[in-house]
Amino acid sequence: MILARITRKECRDFLARLGFGRLACANKLQPYVVPIYFAYEDNRLYGFATMGQKIEWMRLNPRVCVEADEVRSSDQWTSVLARGRYEEILDTPKKLKARQQAQLLLSKRSMWWRTGFAASQIREQAKPGTPILFFIRIEELTGYRASPDPAPVCIG
Amino acid sequence: MILARITRKECRDFLARLGFGRLACANKLQPYVVPIYFAYEDNRLYGFATMGQKIEWMRLNPRVCVEADEVRSSDQWTSVLARGRYEEILDTPKKLKARQQAQLLLSKRSMWWRTGFAASQIREQAKPGTPILFFIRIEELTGYRASPDPAPVCIG
Repeated sequence: MILARITRKECRDFLARLGFGRLACANKLQPYVVPIYFAYEDNRLYGFATMGQKIEWMRLNPRVCVEADEVRSSDQWTSVLARGRYEEILDTPKKLKARQQAQLLLSKRSMWWRTGFAASQIREQAKPGTPILFFIRIEELTGYRASPDPAPVCIG
Repeated sequence: MILARITRKECRDFLARLGFGRLACANKLQPYVVPIYFAYEDNRLYGFATMGQKIEWMRLNPRVCVEADEVRSSDQWTSVLARGRYEEILDTPKKLKARQQAQLLLSKRSMWWRTGFAASQIREQAKPGTPILFFIRIEELTGYRASPDPAPVCIG
């Protein structure tokens, strides 16, 4: 197996294509990790959730880490790690355009968006009717790709 | 889509079968999440790594969270969340039997074990020759399963 670091552009393309990963946040010393559906644009991961533990914790501590991977086999996979900060797109007249843009981005991933919404509802005992739009501003981005060893070349 | 909580036994069986998930740890306020290969036994997730950020952070703060999921489609998936504590199985004569038991468990998942080892080496710039055996003692375990809506039954 050959392991190699991938470029920042490859990381961004990977996040944009995949739109799915795991988000870790922390409340004091306790970490928490949940699946997340997102839309990538301009160094941000846009997401949608209802009120629950994840949102409560990110409001208290905006430092987060998102990992996205694609495993085809044990020697063929890609993994991207984004460290960043949670920012909420408030439901205020001033943020109307930003909310519309985020909703448009997320609507392109409607199936995943609905699943994520339902999952967060049951997992976090959410109160219906409190949709929250947010983004993770990426501050550090790294990725690795594993490929199978090339087949040996027989000479002579 | 129907969402339902699964039993603790189903969670344990799922972890034992899957042997793969994402581990979140935290250093002060900063969370970190990485893929992890593990072997489940008796309320513990056994793992193997070389020295790197993940181990350094878990030594400083043993509180961790592991999420494992299996996504067949947007309306057919299972997700299990385990909150627990990191404990290292030290390389001492007193812990020899515990290390052998952990190694035996992990050896049954040799392909994954090797991939995890290689991944941690490149990701964390590990120093070769410092294998670390550990387990996560599970303190809280929850899981959810999504299934497609049953097909409507036509009568008459």
